[in-house]
Amino acid sequence: MTQEEKTADLAGTIRFVLEIDKLKGVLRKVRPVGEDRYENTAEHSWQIALFALSLAQTLKAPIDASRTVAMLLMHDIGEIDVGDKFVFAQDGWEERKAAELRAVERITGLAPDETAGFLLGLWKEFDAGETPEARFAKAVDRCTPVLLNLSNEGGSWFENGVSYERVIGRVGPEVESGCPELWNYLKQRLDEARRKGYFAPSTRESS
Amino acid sequence: MTQEEKTADLAGTIRFVLEIDKLKGVLRKVRPVGEDRYENTAEHSWQIALFALSLAQTLKAPIDASRTVAMLLMHDIGEIDVGDKFVFAQDGWEERKAAELRAVERITGLAPDETAGFLLGLWKEFDAGETPEARFAKAVDRCTPVLLNLSNEGGSWFENGVSYERVIGRVGPEVESGCPELWNYLKQRLDEARRKGYFAPSTRESS
Repeated sequence: MTQEEKTADLAGTIRFVLEIDKLKGVLRKVRPVGEDRYENTAEHSWQIALFALSLAQTLKAPIDASRTVAMLLMHDIGEIDVGDKFVFAQDGWEERKAAELRAVERITGLAPDETAGFLLGLWKEFDAGETPEARFAKAVDRCTPVLLNLSNEGGSWFENGVSYERVIGRVGPEVESGCPELWNYLKQRLDEARRKGYFAPSTRESS
Repeated sequence: MTQEEKTADLAGTIRFVLEIDKLKGVLRKVRPVGEDRYENTAEHSWQIALFALSLAQTLKAPIDASRTVAMLLMHDIGEIDVGDKFVFAQDGWEERKAAELRAVERITGLAPDETAGFLLGLWKEFDAGETPEARFAKAVDRCTPVLLNLSNEGGSWFENGVSYERVIGRVGPEVESGCPELWNYLKQRLDEARRKGYFAPSTRESS
């Protein structure tokens, strides 16, 4: 590889790094514990990456933890173009997914080809949710806003009309599939929270 | 391991994950590109982890990239107790380092012993800066705020009285030692920026 090619690769990587800076401005529907503002997707991605790394130490899950971490760093960068979608939204998921893939292709395409292929592969693996690493990653991703809301006495659930049944139905299958121990723990915490009145009342639509 | 021990471990990991949530409230002296607010240490940690992962793909640096990524996720969590320290501050670095170690011991100590030992080991390896992985991590960490400031027409340099010579002196050695190609690129960008007047004037103290 010539010096010029090396410099071009480096410039491409840095173009990518400056583009993903925009993820710091994408807001989610969950607040950091004890804060008034919504969290952004960049800080969320950091927290779940470190969560997965930590969790893998004691769980002895038969996964490549560093692949899971890498997927979690990448999994939401499409939101730079399409924004965050509230996990309890009822529809529009198919169109959303296609738009997100186009976004991830555009953003990774700023990096050198080899890097772009690697990063896009991480995103697609997470999205497909078939490997144990991807399922573990999804479990941690789904679980974390629930933990934050539990620490914020229900947080965004009440204000967004989300019932206990809706949380169980939307979060449970992915957490249980990717990390059964985590779901076992979380289910108990959700049952406690229900007794404390952290959820919006159940309606036919939300159950 | 009994079910009770497993549950205790999981509860410990989650205690740790909720504690590190506070890093989202620690502000640095650099702004995200085009934003008025300062960035926080959590989103910074995400960006540099993904930067290191991407950079390692084309550089073919003889490092374990996933160890570098893990270090970067952990390297600043002590700031939860001690706050961010401006990289161009002139003194107080020894006391600061001791306080930061105590903070990291406290925070990782919330996690199960095995996890705590693993995470503290990552922090200490980064801090010592002796392994190629740690030096690569430090290069990326030091380089990123410089890239953001370059994209913000000098950003916090001018307002904090930081001269070109001071940036070169403070950032150069670590970036060059951990990733010479990156320093080669960055030095050229800094020289351009100097010509554009992005820096505070040089004084005896800051050079």
